[in-house]
Amino acid sequence: MTSVAVAGCTGYAGGELLRLLVQHPQTEIGALTAGSSAGRRLGELQPHLTPLADRVVEETTVETLSGHDVVFLALPHGTSAAIARELGDDVVVIDCGADFRLTDAAAWQRFYGTEHAGSWPYGLPELPGQREQVAGATRIAVPGCYPTTATLALAPAVSSGLVDGHDVVVVAASGPSGAGKSLKPHLLGAELMGSASAYGVGGVHRHVPEICQNLALLGAQDPTVSFTPVLVPMSRGILATCTAPLADPTTSTETARGVYAEALAEEPFVTLLPEGQWPQTQSVLGSNTVHLQVAVDAAAGRLVAVAALDNLTKGTAGGAVQCMNLALGLPETLGLPLVGVAP
Amino acid sequence: MTSVAVAGCTGYAGGELLRLLVQHPQTEIGALTAGSSAGRRLGELQPHLTPLADRVVEETTVETLSGHDVVFLALPHGTSAAIARELGDDVVVIDCGADFRLTDAAAWQRFYGTEHAGSWPYGLPELPGQREQVAGATRIAVPGCYPTTATLALAPAVSSGLVDGHDVVVVAASGPSGAGKSLKPHLLGAELMGSASAYGVGGVHRHVPEICQNLALLGAQDPTVSFTPVLVPMSRGILATCTAPLADPTTSTETARGVYAEALAEEPFVTLLPEGQWPQTQSVLGSNTVHLQVAVDAAAGRLVAVAALDNLTKGTAGGAVQCMNLALGLPETLGLPLVGVAP
Amino acid sequence: MTSVAVAGCTGYAGGELLRLLVQHPQTEIGALTAGSSAGRRLGELQPHLTPLADRVVEETTVETLSGHDVVFLALPHGTSAAIARELGDDVVVIDCGADFRLTDAAAWQRFYGTEHAGSWPYGLPELPGQREQVAGATRIAVPGCYPTTATLALAPAVSSGLVDGHDVVVVAASGPSGAGKSLKPHLLGAELMGSASAYGVGGVHRHVPEICQNLALLGAQDPTVSFTPVLVPMSRGILATCTAPLADPTTSTETARGVYAEALAEEPFVTLLPEGQWPQTQSVLGSNTVHLQVAVDAAAGRLVAVAALDNLTKGTAGGAVQCMNLALGLPETLGLPLVGVAP
Amino acid sequence: MTSVAVAGCTGYAGGELLRLLVQHPQTEIGALTAGSSAGRRLGELQPHLTPLADRVVEETTVETLSGHDVVFLALPHGTSAAIARELGDDVVVIDCGADFRLTDAAAWQRFYGTEHAGSWPYGLPELPGQREQVAGATRIAVPGCYPTTATLALAPAVSSGLVDGHDVVVVAASGPSGAGKSLKPHLLGAELMGSASAYGVGGVHRHVPEICQNLALLGAQDPTVSFTPVLVPMSRGILATCTAPLADPTTSTETARGVYAEALAEEPFVTLLPEGQWPQTQSVLGSNTVHLQVAVDAAAGRLVAVAALDNLTKGTAGGAVQCMNLALGLPETLGLPLVGVAP
Repeated sequence: MTSVAVAGCTGYAGGELLRLLVQHPQTEIGALTAGSSAGRRLGELQPHLTPLADRVVEETTVETLSGHDVVFLALPHGTSAAIARELGDDVVVIDCGADFRLTDAAAWQRFYGTEHAGSWPYGLPELPGQREQVAGATRIAVPGCYPTTATLALAPAVSSGLVDGHDVVVVAASGPSGAGKSLKPHLLGAELMGSASAYGVGGVHRHVPEICQNLALLGAQDPTVSFTPVLVPMSRGILATCTAPLADPTTSTETARGVYAEALAEEPFVTLLPEGQWPQTQSVLGSNTVHLQVAVDAAAGRLVAVAALDNLTKGTAGGAVQCMNLALGLPETLGLPLVGVAP
Repeated sequence: MTSVAVAGCTGYAGGELLRLLVQHPQTEIGALTAGSSAGRRLGELQPHLTPLADRVVEETTVETLSGHDVVFLALPHGTSAAIARELGDDVVVIDCGADFRLTDAAAWQRFYGTEHAGSWPYGLPELPGQREQVAGATRIAVPGCYPTTATLALAPAVSSGLVDGHDVVVVAASGPSGAGKSLKPHLLGAELMGSASAYGVGGVHRHVPEICQNLALLGAQDPTVSFTPVLVPMSRGILATCTAPLADPTTSTETARGVYAEALAEEPFVTLLPEGQWPQTQSVLGSNTVHLQVAVDAAAGRLVAVAALDNLTKGTAGGAVQCMNLALGLPETLGLPLVGVAP
Repeated sequence: MTSVAVAGCTGYAGGELLRLLVQHPQTEIGALTAGSSAGRRLGELQPHLTPLADRVVEETTVETLSGHDVVFLALPHGTSAAIARELGDDVVVIDCGADFRLTDAAAWQRFYGTEHAGSWPYGLPELPGQREQVAGATRIAVPGCYPTTATLALAPAVSSGLVDGHDVVVVAASGPSGAGKSLKPHLLGAELMGSASAYGVGGVHRHVPEICQNLALLGAQDPTVSFTPVLVPMSRGILATCTAPLADPTTSTETARGVYAEALAEEPFVTLLPEGQWPQTQSVLGSNTVHLQVAVDAAAGRLVAVAALDNLTKGTAGGAVQCMNLALGLPETLGLPLVGVAP
Repeated sequence: MTSVAVAGCTGYAGGELLRLLVQHPQTEIGALTAGSSAGRRLGELQPHLTPLADRVVEETTVETLSGHDVVFLALPHGTSAAIARELGDDVVVIDCGADFRLTDAAAWQRFYGTEHAGSWPYGLPELPGQREQVAGATRIAVPGCYPTTATLALAPAVSSGLVDGHDVVVVAASGPSGAGKSLKPHLLGAELMGSASAYGVGGVHRHVPEICQNLALLGAQDPTVSFTPVLVPMSRGILATCTAPLADPTTSTETARGVYAEALAEEPFVTLLPEGQWPQTQSVLGSNTVHLQVAVDAAAGRLVAVAALDNLTKGTAGGAVQCMNLALGLPETLGLPLVGVAP
């Protein structure tokens, strides 16, 4: 058994990590830590974690986190580096925050406004070369939920050259759990139910450089992305509509689907739906599965790829557990649900 | 007082027409007609129309519709022409269906597969020249809800030349009321709640030619639109994210906002929000108001315009009443709510 | 024209008051005041109030509120008395808060824990004698949203003696807007969407003594109420299921319906639905209408009455405007929507 | 490995059975059958069952169902008997429908209007004696979702004599998945979202006799139940508020909680929350866990018990798998999630 600690256990990412880890056959849950909630019963803060209800939340310190095989960090941006530095090199540290995702210090500085902490192996095993990198790593940066969705939607197209990664347009509908358990007026239920709204429009969202970094890694030269997130009334889920100009405007949907089918044939978590069937977030709710579909819009000269995933599972905690499995040499899919909770 | 009849009073568009007409100071509600529901109390079928609950639904025939000053048609596609032909030329006939929206018979044939019935004055008064056309008309085709949203979002940009109308990308989140009261499995509540899904992807949605027609009317040469509708869990509302390559990549957000502010200064129903505030559908729910915002994404070289409206009000029935007001020489805003039902 | 001021214009009750007052033909909107938001544009805080977007929020003081014919108070509990005392006796002051609802000082003390401020005419015109009291009043206490719903559901039964008001059980599903725009974790969208939860269970909710007070006013001797509010995923609306032991266990549904029909015949805002049709909140959303249905459960020996209303409209702001109309001698229904925004 | 077949695999109960069975370590999924959908890929009809997407649905016949160790029936009412009769006595047949739940033929006749098929061991292991009955059974009737919720909420109180089972009032909020994938207008998403509605009011719901049967089994003499189901906007989940007159009106909440704590101490799926914490359906979504809380309302002289569960999991398919585990001699909790998918 592998002992794991979760720092930031009272937030949405921390709660989802624990939902998955409780059901994981190879992990033993150790310290559960947080900031201001230290000392409280976990059941008060995460009532869905029934089997852990009587566990007491400890303070997030190097001491409480030490002595585990794996430490998951689900902390506010900018706080992971100090902790990670103090944990032994043999401990597998998996960061669900943004701190170590970007390789470009200038991009970090521009979007986050603080000093760059560095970069860790990027925990998106579906990217070329990443499965291998993660397998040997003791420090792993879990991707952002939007970049995971957009990257997986476009990866086969970019790496095959169907599209070249310039002038990509991504509009992603998402539930508010991605914003965390923050007490902000626009995240109140009365504001969100029955309403859709755009935010972070015009290239200012922090996930833009991460999407570009991934497209470059897939082979795009100077990728550009117009990215608009849209908040919609569902707790979880991202549905990303991603379009890009076709390199060859005569490409057919059949050709595009063939490229995708081949690229995804061996991926355990990414499924190309049959022609004509389009992804819906409900189908992947609570699972680590991604549903994809792709079509050519001949009149517009664009490829349209749509991906659905659960932002807390494959988009955060499920992706993190997938990386843990790889880092520990366990089967990549161990303990990860493949079936969504629908309807 | 103006006597009005509503054909198709049992559907969502018909219900919304009646919600507005009950509160309109210059209309008197005459015949309410439908197909298979003829003979039933309206209150059984549209329980929200309390003041009309005891009205009995009549059959949709030329006879029941005759003798009114205005006839609204909220009927299935393909059925308006036969009825309109039989109603007198002096009767104002306002069609909420698609039959008379497209001017291009080939486009109609391609997307609807039936013979083109012709085209009527297009009921989007905010388009150049349309307010005048509608004012003198006795036949008016109310635009589709998605084309209304996308067109209003982009109109100032296209007509001013900020963008030229090629390579437009529109992704629009919408509630299911736009699909009507159809008994289809994917429209069941259990399927939709907690889920987002794309449909009509890849240029096949019937609203594509209508959006292109509008962009051309605004001055675009050979416009192209990649359009993806996304169903999200709210009864009503459309939030459209519309992006297009900037004609001049150095255009600033300030310049774009200035163009929009000037273009919309006199529009009673379309409001440009202050800089930094983005539209949300809740703010316009049940109203005839459209909220707009626009920004430049310099890195992507694209203008991003976001519009929110209520698909049943400004997107259908409110737009229809606005046209009725113009056709009858009444104040354009008469009887139309400007304030959304929020939260 | 009547000049009105709204204190607490940035909350949900204040926003709804303004939505209704903007459309009211006899009011002119004067000072809009709040606490910490003073100095900001209203459009930032209440984006749905498009026509008032550029109004600047003033501080809530006696000075800003003075000089109006009517002052609406939508303030935190315990703050109305001090302000009301300073406003002239000829000013109509309508309090949407709880301060002046209860006549029993001991009940106030027990449920609110502060000193009782006194009681004002109770603004539920549908109660016997209240329409007349409100008509002559310059101080009016608007009922709580749950008491409005439960009282209207049971009033014909209690006043006719169908039930005697003891052992009443009320379970009411409600959206979170009734809790106000409070930054509390359990009101976050991610917590509420897809979830139902009970709160204030076991007789501790502050609306219990108000419901009992109303049942007594209707003629019940020592009424008792088991009241459980249930939070459900919709922004607005209350659906209250109210049951009580039948005084005569042989009462039929037909008899009960007859009693209700007679009692409600002249009420402009309370509608008994036809037999077999049960209320739904959507039908009354945004309107001042209440939908009722009643049946006898012979095996259980109980009357079951179900009422639906919009907690912000008839349950708060619409009820307040109804009272203003009465107090000013205007038609009771003036400016109040009767048709819900459905679907 | 145990081979299992699922008849009615295209509905919501069938889909949930398969979601659980895919993750169950001791089952091998055999025939998947349905009526009119026979011949289609399961992935078209149940897109969330990704690992089974390519399975082809067979027709529901004795032949297709034969040869399995366990057959789950998730069929329309009235169709199970004919099939069960033809399956061998050694096959474990678990019926998710109503056919074999009621022991009283007259009650069946009154509520279902057809001839009574008989009764099978009742699959609610938490009832006294039922765990043992189910353990030896090859025919098991899975309880209805509402009866499961109400019974579990009240069981400790009734069996201990805190309440005697007369004049019970149950109001249960539920999502529409309990109504199945039926194409009925009131189940459309546009009708349900943003709305709460009561149905089956006044003692006419078919689950009333089943609740009474369970209360009698717990020791109640002539139990009576006023039961009102309320449809609310969430796909899944039931929150039942259950009240009953206290046998001894001086009973304290502490005493009641003590009774519940003792009664539930060994139950793997039913959890009494700590004092002051009330159940919410989100916490148990997708899990087989039930959350309970209980309080005394001294002024009303009633016990109030609130239970939350997932109608498709513990309320149907999870309960069915729990019964299968018992019938096969497997650990009762095997393969059943204990943690809800929240937020």
